[in-house]
Amino acid sequence: MLSKSQIKLITSLKQKKYRQQHGFFVVEGIKTIKELLHSDFKLHLLFTTESFNINAKDEVLITEVDLKRISFLKTPNKALAIFKIPEFKAIEQSGLIVALDAIRDPGNLGTIIRLCDWFGVKELVCSKETVDCYNPKVIQATMGSITRVNISYVDLVSFLKEGNLLVFGAFMEGENVYKTTLPEKGILVMGNEANGISNEVEKFVTEKISIPRFGDVQATESLNVATATAILLSEFCRRF
Amino acid sequence: MLSKSQIKLITSLKQKKYRQQHGFFVVEGIKTIKELLHSDFKLHLLFTTESFNINAKDEVLITEVDLKRISFLKTPNKALAIFKIPEFKAIEQSGLIVALDAIRDPGNLGTIIRLCDWFGVKELVCSKETVDCYNPKVIQATMGSITRVNISYVDLVSFLKEGNLLVFGAFMEGENVYKTTLPEKGILVMGNEANGISNEVEKFVTEKISIPRFGDVQATESLNVATATAILLSEFCRRF
Repeated sequence: MLSKSQIKLITSLKQKKYRQQHGFFVVEGIKTIKELLHSDFKLHLLFTTESFNINAKDEVLITEVDLKRISFLKTPNKALAIFKIPEFKAIEQSGLIVALDAIRDPGNLGTIIRLCDWFGVKELVCSKETVDCYNPKVIQATMGSITRVNISYVDLVSFLKEGNLLVFGAFMEGENVYKTTLPEKGILVMGNEANGISNEVEKFVTEKISIPRFGDVQATESLNVATATAILLSEFCRRF
Repeated sequence: MLSKSQIKLITSLKQKKYRQQHGFFVVEGIKTIKELLHSDFKLHLLFTTESFNINAKDEVLITEVDLKRISFLKTPNKALAIFKIPEFKAIEQSGLIVALDAIRDPGNLGTIIRLCDWFGVKELVCSKETVDCYNPKVIQATMGSITRVNISYVDLVSFLKEGNLLVFGAFMEGENVYKTTLPEKGILVMGNEANGISNEVEKFVTEKISIPRFGDVQATESLNVATATAILLSEFCRRF
């Protein structure tokens, strides 16, 4: 059975301020929930139409109709879980780090998290203006990758100021990435969808790189930030 | 002034069957409309809150309120245009061709069209099951790139059967793309979001390639099709 206060809690978790207030976020779909159950994430409550055979006090069996009431999806997928937002974990300055400067689109952030997972990037550092990674649309797009990437929200300028790694950023006038020497360790900064990397962050970019355009002169002005991240991470990794 | 029949026509163009019946599609936003006006696409009618100073009979000045009534967007952007769907143009078997096997998501198709434009791919060949490129969400995502890529909907199996170019396709067990010799001419097939390349199409893939995974063993199973296309096109182009 689903209580009124549970419905109220779940609905509130659509909004960042209530996620932060309660320290919870919502995950939907059996596959992704199972991935989180097998990770360090801590379950708060699971609402499901089919038992997962986990600790009975954590699991609430509900009807399809009830699931439809609480789901954020058009077509709910058998289960909805509330997990605890993990505590801040120190950022390890080893390997390649991806830093995001005000990425706004949940789909882009979700895709970038999946890319970090694919390319073995352990640390994703987001500016405070970046969309919340516990936004339900981001969680949906990550397909469970969120369990394998440490995501931190920081003051990006301070973070870059304090570090001593090379900082790479994509700029139109940057050096052709195909011809650039790329190290195993470093920070790759990706900028906002509309405005790119901000002026304050640009000051800390030590290596400006670019993805060459092969199309006509009038070809598209820019790549989508998620596809640009894909190409750049591939370039960093293919050499090792 | 906006007539009832115009409103009816525009609304109908949300659906593929009416786009095909009328031979028209909708484009929104000043920037993208201007790109189409400067291309081979033929304008049927332009509805705008600010004159574009084009042929008066093609332009209908309307109010913001009227634009809101006809727009497919939450926040309409000053103009909505109806363009003619261009006639089928023969597929040139030169350079690199991208072929799509049942891509369903409009955002993915739009991103792939933009990538083709960026990497100078002139021909995009889609299976009949692929989402319609004149779908308003695709047009929105292409940001004008649709004017520079020739998009054809064909029976993909027949197309591959008749051609004599090498056919590349991404498979988990394929050869590491970073170590594969890639030609300047060829066909790159990208498969459906959930099922990959279909069995019938796989028979015509002469070169199976894969993007190596650098993450943990349990890392994400697959990349999004648009990001995989980005990485593979980058690999084809970076060598020339």
